[in-house]
Amino acid sequence: MAKKTAIVPTREENFPLWYQEVVKLAELAENSPVRGCMVIKPWGFSIWEHLQRNLDKRFKAYGVENAYFPLFIPLSYFEKEAKHVEGFATECAVVTHHRLEKQKDGSLIPASPLEEPLVVRPTSEMIIGEMFSKWVQSYRDLPMRINQWANVVRWEMRPRIFLRTSEFLWQEGHTVHATAQEAEEESLKMLNCYAEFAEDQLALPAIKGEKSENERFPGADKTFTFEMMMQDKKALQSGTSHFLGQNFAKAAGITYLSKEGKQELAWTTSWGTTTRLIGAMIMTHADDDGLIMPPKVAAKHVVIVPIIHKQETEEKILTYCDELAKKLSALDYHGRQVEAFVDKRDLRGGEKNWNWIKKGVPIRIEVGMREIEEGKLCVSLRTADHKEKRFLSEKELVDGVVSDLDQIHATLLTRAKTLLDENTRFFKDRNKFAKFFSGNEEQISGGFAQCFWAGDPELEDKIKKDLNVTIRCIPFEGQGEMGKCLFTAKETTTQVIFAKSY
Amino acid sequence: MAKKTAIVPTREENFPLWYQEVVKLAELAENSPVRGCMVIKPWGFSIWEHLQRNLDKRFKAYGVENAYFPLFIPLSYFEKEAKHVEGFATECAVVTHHRLEKQKDGSLIPASPLEEPLVVRPTSEMIIGEMFSKWVQSYRDLPMRINQWANVVRWEMRPRIFLRTSEFLWQEGHTVHATAQEAEEESLKMLNCYAEFAEDQLALPAIKGEKSENERFPGADKTFTFEMMMQDKKALQSGTSHFLGQNFAKAAGITYLSKEGKQELAWTTSWGTTTRLIGAMIMTHADDDGLIMPPKVAAKHVVIVPIIHKQETEEKILTYCDELAKKLSALDYHGRQVEAFVDKRDLRGGEKNWNWIKKGVPIRIEVGMREIEEGKLCVSLRTADHKEKRFLSEKELVDGVVSDLDQIHATLLTRAKTLLDENTRFFKDRNKFAKFFSGNEEQISGGFAQCFWAGDPELEDKIKKDLNVTIRCIPFEGQGEMGKCLFTAKETTTQVIFAKSY
Repeated sequence: MAKKTAIVPTREENFPLWYQEVVKLAELAENSPVRGCMVIKPWGFSIWEHLQRNLDKRFKAYGVENAYFPLFIPLSYFEKEAKHVEGFATECAVVTHHRLEKQKDGSLIPASPLEEPLVVRPTSEMIIGEMFSKWVQSYRDLPMRINQWANVVRWEMRPRIFLRTSEFLWQEGHTVHATAQEAEEESLKMLNCYAEFAEDQLALPAIKGEKSENERFPGADKTFTFEMMMQDKKALQSGTSHFLGQNFAKAAGITYLSKEGKQELAWTTSWGTTTRLIGAMIMTHADDDGLIMPPKVAAKHVVIVPIIHKQETEEKILTYCDELAKKLSALDYHGRQVEAFVDKRDLRGGEKNWNWIKKGVPIRIEVGMREIEEGKLCVSLRTADHKEKRFLSEKELVDGVVSDLDQIHATLLTRAKTLLDENTRFFKDRNKFAKFFSGNEEQISGGFAQCFWAGDPELEDKIKKDLNVTIRCIPFEGQGEMGKCLFTAKETTTQVIFAKSY
Repeated sequence: MAKKTAIVPTREENFPLWYQEVVKLAELAENSPVRGCMVIKPWGFSIWEHLQRNLDKRFKAYGVENAYFPLFIPLSYFEKEAKHVEGFATECAVVTHHRLEKQKDGSLIPASPLEEPLVVRPTSEMIIGEMFSKWVQSYRDLPMRINQWANVVRWEMRPRIFLRTSEFLWQEGHTVHATAQEAEEESLKMLNCYAEFAEDQLALPAIKGEKSENERFPGADKTFTFEMMMQDKKALQSGTSHFLGQNFAKAAGITYLSKEGKQELAWTTSWGTTTRLIGAMIMTHADDDGLIMPPKVAAKHVVIVPIIHKQETEEKILTYCDELAKKLSALDYHGRQVEAFVDKRDLRGGEKNWNWIKKGVPIRIEVGMREIEEGKLCVSLRTADHKEKRFLSEKELVDGVVSDLDQIHATLLTRAKTLLDENTRFFKDRNKFAKFFSGNEEQISGGFAQCFWAGDPELEDKIKKDLNVTIRCIPFEGQGEMGKCLFTAKETTTQVIFAKSY
């Protein structure tokens, strides 16, 4: 290796560029010829498939059913909820024609204008609300819990792969309830579902809380969020759950006949997570040699790299590798088999090894004649330091592989929690607060700044302009005590977390 | 029951209306407020989920990897392949703006026109081809096999739920190969994969063959199809697999460095199936009482309906039902558990029963005090005749339930095969051929008419105008013999199948 690290620049040198290089060299995704839209490549998409499968099971255990709603929403539907349209108007892709016409020079132009333009869904509250207004008739139909896995479009002027793209993949859950309390509890339950899922599957810890008015979902009464800290100490909102009050029920006319025979307006929630979680995973766990994959979402757990120096040993080595892969694949890792495979590509062993390091495969095993003869396999775990190698007998390896995978998950989670804890600070001094956030955009600096807050949306806007930070959330933990607002000096019991964010 | 059948009208009375009623009363899907777009309801979507899971496994066993490509395709990409654009130009939804603007009267209009309009993908050959041109570098990268599960839009003036909608869900596989032979074999392999899948999962038999030039995919060298016969004896094309030759490789510039060090143009294929399969399932198996669900795609296999006449027996009956459901759920049915559940809704037993008959649940069990005391359960299989009831001991039921489910699958498949065989006729007489297709659109008449064919696309067009039938395929079976074309009297070895179709 001429270079010291596989990824250039390193995280310290330039975090945003480092991120792009990890995405590229791990073959996760790339920009498409369509501005702002990404192509998710097989290695990246396999992560999404694992996330989908696991989250879907959790939803179903909560009585949520999947359905599918149209990609398009008639323009007039957006006029029904004022705040909602205000929030999404600047990022809507609009279909206006339904045919292409060839011109004399062979070029194509849109033809056959639609009577009413159609918006490509940025989210589906308006169209699902319309269906709910038909499906919900009586209290017997409640609660109603529906989810869809879908693509959505929010036009993006400054796209970044997985973090902010014009089209992204997500799930959106929508529920209807008879009472405000039940609906709000549901939205909190789903927030907890997300946070548990992220820790359990992606080794991603988060701070849970409520959004301030400025950052609330357009049309919601309350938005709950879970915020993660990336390695550059910026915040990433990884999913949200909204208590929508009766705003969307009013807009769509979702009413039900109560037990007492009265027509009542329903209460609704919605909640979503997206392919952005893959971005969170990269920016939390990857290092200067590339991706580090939490084992539960890895399509491949163990790669066996045959080291063949002489033609005549090839068959023996490959046979040994295949048998080893078979033994490992027979093991159970949290409900699926240990995914072990032999990399038989016609490449040098070192090249293969670096390939899998960059792709973040949890465990790598090198097998050559010496290893077979000495009965010691060279085993590397892809956690912090790819150079950390162990020499294990086959039995030690096979007996320990599942706990090794669990160990990798635990290591990643602990490291991420430490980062979060060590960089969340409480502030009583405005100058120190300002200094905390004074680093430039490429540098790693700052963190989560917790403080008392009695300000208003205007003040929050001003702080955003001055320091490029926003209130990420009003955290659930640490409320109740009395203190002075850092900015207005008013007495309050509310604490908030400020941070730079994605 | 005042009515003789749950579905009015019956199949004989008006097949298209019968279809709509089955879809509605089984709660599979409904029309949305967006013209031509459907909402797939939970019961309908659960079928798609099962199809997806099973088909995805088959693809992966063939080395296909999933990925995701943009929803939008730049207009200029369509100009690259002349036949392709010709085929899709009349059904393209076009995005022309990326913002909404509020007018003084509060209404919204599209704003911020795009520099280049974007077509909502009707299929993704052009955009995936562009990516392949980057991903394929050398012979080592071949074959490349990629699939995506996605929504596509083909503007539809006369939509019909599941059969023809402006937006539908599908998978599209795309492969790249070094040689023409390998590519053509791949497209045939995938056609066989579909046909096996449809028989195994949906109990749907089909005739496999090649499309005539008129019905070929725009831009393909050859299109292979599997055609099913619905109960109204019309044909339904249930999926296609295309040997694309070098047409799309040329358009996108997919080349590779051969082993001999030469830059060569690649060969490609594409293949897809859609939510239309659900329409095929309905029109093949459903009867005048509603849906009949092939057990392998049913989200619920066994519904237990408690029959409670007296309040004081309720607890005993419900406890018995829960225990029965538990015993049934412990059984394995082709790799998943037997999905058994107790319908505890606050409705009369008869109402519940009819509800599940219309939804097509394979097995229904009624349990009241008499059944418990006498040790004989009333068991009904949802095949041809819902009135056919058996009285079984619990042991007989539990021991036999898996083979009952298999029996239902076998019954459905046999019945569908019989329909197909009995209504596929060979024609040597043009008058008889014309008479075969003389029935009106609402009536059940006609079938598959096989004959020798040496005509051209113009003649096929004329026959279509006269009789409203098209060549569904040149079937793989039954070629080679010599005979006279039914229309031109020329000698030929080619036989084709004509039919009315969806």
